[in-house]
Amino acid sequence: MAVRWYSVVVDCKDVRAQAGWWAEAIGWRPAYEADDEVVLVPPHALTDRARKLAVEERGPELTFVPVPEGKSVKNRLHMDLAPRAHDDQAAEVQRLLDLGAVRVDVGQGPEVTWVVLADPEGNEFCVLSPRD
Amino acid sequence: MAVRWYSVVVDCKDVRAQAGWWAEAIGWRPAYEADDEVVLVPPHALTDRARKLAVEERGPELTFVPVPEGKSVKNRLHMDLAPRAHDDQAAEVQRLLDLGAVRVDVGQGPEVTWVVLADPEGNEFCVLSPRD
Repeated sequence: MAVRWYSVVVDCKDVRAQAGWWAEAIGWRPAYEADDEVVLVPPHALTDRARKLAVEERGPELTFVPVPEGKSVKNRLHMDLAPRAHDDQAAEVQRLLDLGAVRVDVGQGPEVTWVVLADPEGNEFCVLSPRD
Repeated sequence: MAVRWYSVVVDCKDVRAQAGWWAEAIGWRPAYEADDEVVLVPPHALTDRARKLAVEERGPELTFVPVPEGKSVKNRLHMDLAPRAHDDQAAEVQRLLDLGAVRVDVGQGPEVTWVVLADPEGNEFCVLSPRD
């Protein structure tokens, strides 16, 4: 395959604030920072070992870019986050709420195993139950 | 960090069609298939070697789920695809157009190095210039 999934790009009102928020949320680090674009990568992607991984084994980056318009409807693409097997979903949800996430209702109902939150610009994301 | 980016979830009118289209587009394979959810992973994630990679080194999956509503505005999150260094952006764009992508104008102007396309349900994505 001659093309690979290289990045997820998030439209922002405030690029640096959004990138900073997501860096805290998932523990990623900026690989590039400018007023009109910030790129986050996982910490391991900044190490020598990761640079030796085949291209196919690197996941996408997370890129933040400015747009003039605000968010108007539920996003059609969203990110799922997952605690690792030994970690605690409720504690992670609380940590994200403490960072400034808010709970949102997208019609998920009370019985689902995941928690729906939104980031400071309203982008919905889910915190799944723990998995390896 | 006790939480990781686990998946990108794409709202769909036709889950199997969309998952099949993206599998062709980026060469990923279904790791789970049901009427209400299809999960794609890169081919290497189905091999023993990949299963031994640390959790931190696995990138997110790509998950397709059904929603009742259609797409109404430009997506606030989108995927960027990139040809590898030795591959040809124009050829990849043509391959994706042949699969059913369409060119879209999101105001990118004529001078940018990337090409903006949309998948069969209208989700915008970019094909970047080649990179490692």
